Amino acid sequence: MARTRTLPTADELRVWRDYIETAEALRAAISARLQSDSALSPGDYAVLLALSEAEGHRMRSSDLAARIHWERSRLSHHLGRMEKRGLIAREECVTDSRGAEVVLAPAGESAFHGATVPHLRAVRELFVDALTPQQVAAAGELVAALRAHLAQPADRGTE
Amino acid sequence: MARTRTLPTADELRVWRDYIETAEALRAAISARLQSDSALSPGDYAVLLALSEAEGHRMRSSDLAARIHWERSRLSHHLGRMEKRGLIAREECVTDSRGAEVVLAPAGESAFHGATVPHLRAVRELFVDALTPQQVAAAGELVAALRAHLAQPADRGTE
Repeated sequence: MARTRTLPTADELRVWRDYIETAEALRAAISARLQSDSALSPGDYAVLLALSEAEGHRMRSSDLAARIHWERSRLSHHLGRMEKRGLIAREECVTDSRGAEVVLAPAGESAFHGATVPHLRAVRELFVDALTPQQVAAAGELVAALRAHLAQPADRGTE
Repeated sequence: MARTRTLPTADELRVWRDYIETAEALRAAISARLQSDSALSPGDYAVLLALSEAEGHRMRSSDLAARIHWERSRLSHHLGRMEKRGLIAREECVTDSRGAEVVLAPAGESAFHGATVPHLRAVRELFVDALTPQQVAAAGELVAALRAHLAQPADRGTE
């Protein structure tokens, strides 16, 4: 396609900037709601969600990092803080290179359950309610296309 | 609408998570390209872009913060680092409460000009090329709807 050889048009660039800025504004708004409703950060919630969905409410820290798209070092620092608050526990496993096993603690389970409905309500109010069902479907197709393209090995500029 | 009174469906929640995660993955990919192509962070680029577009290549720090959606304190720290690198200069203005005037320095101007084409190429390759023209248009309408909804005073859950 000829357009793949050109720089973005002014319209394409505006859509790009709006896409990124709006995603950040939405994330900030959802984070503020989560914090005020439940005193959890988005990182806390992501960890608690992943553990809640994991078999036996436990995961290897390496698997957890991959699941929530975090660097292992960043996750390790964050888990230390969550452990101090009693939300999770870590069980070292000397025979396994995939890192400690992270376990959902009772306080984490109740914090997650208390946070879920307000958080889902915020997602509905700030994201879903802004869009028509057709726009939600279009958003799904759009992000799928972006994600598939991102996952391609970069053979950039060779078109 | 009845749907505004319900929590998100599993599909709506998946679209929400994909939207946010994909925006973050895209931003990270574009940032990595910007850093490797031009040794500029996205924050550097945003500041240089705003100053390049400003009349006389200068802005009040408060106006610059609003323009790039940053807290003034975060911007002030960032500007200090950019000033050390000779990319911008700051001119204190005792008679004005809107903060120092930030001026694009020659090194910043050349860094910005050198970074622009590779950055636009990355946006084209990672975002625009992933989408059909129809999807780009749909993305524009989508983010406009999200942004307009975010801008509304929150009278949440009263539907």
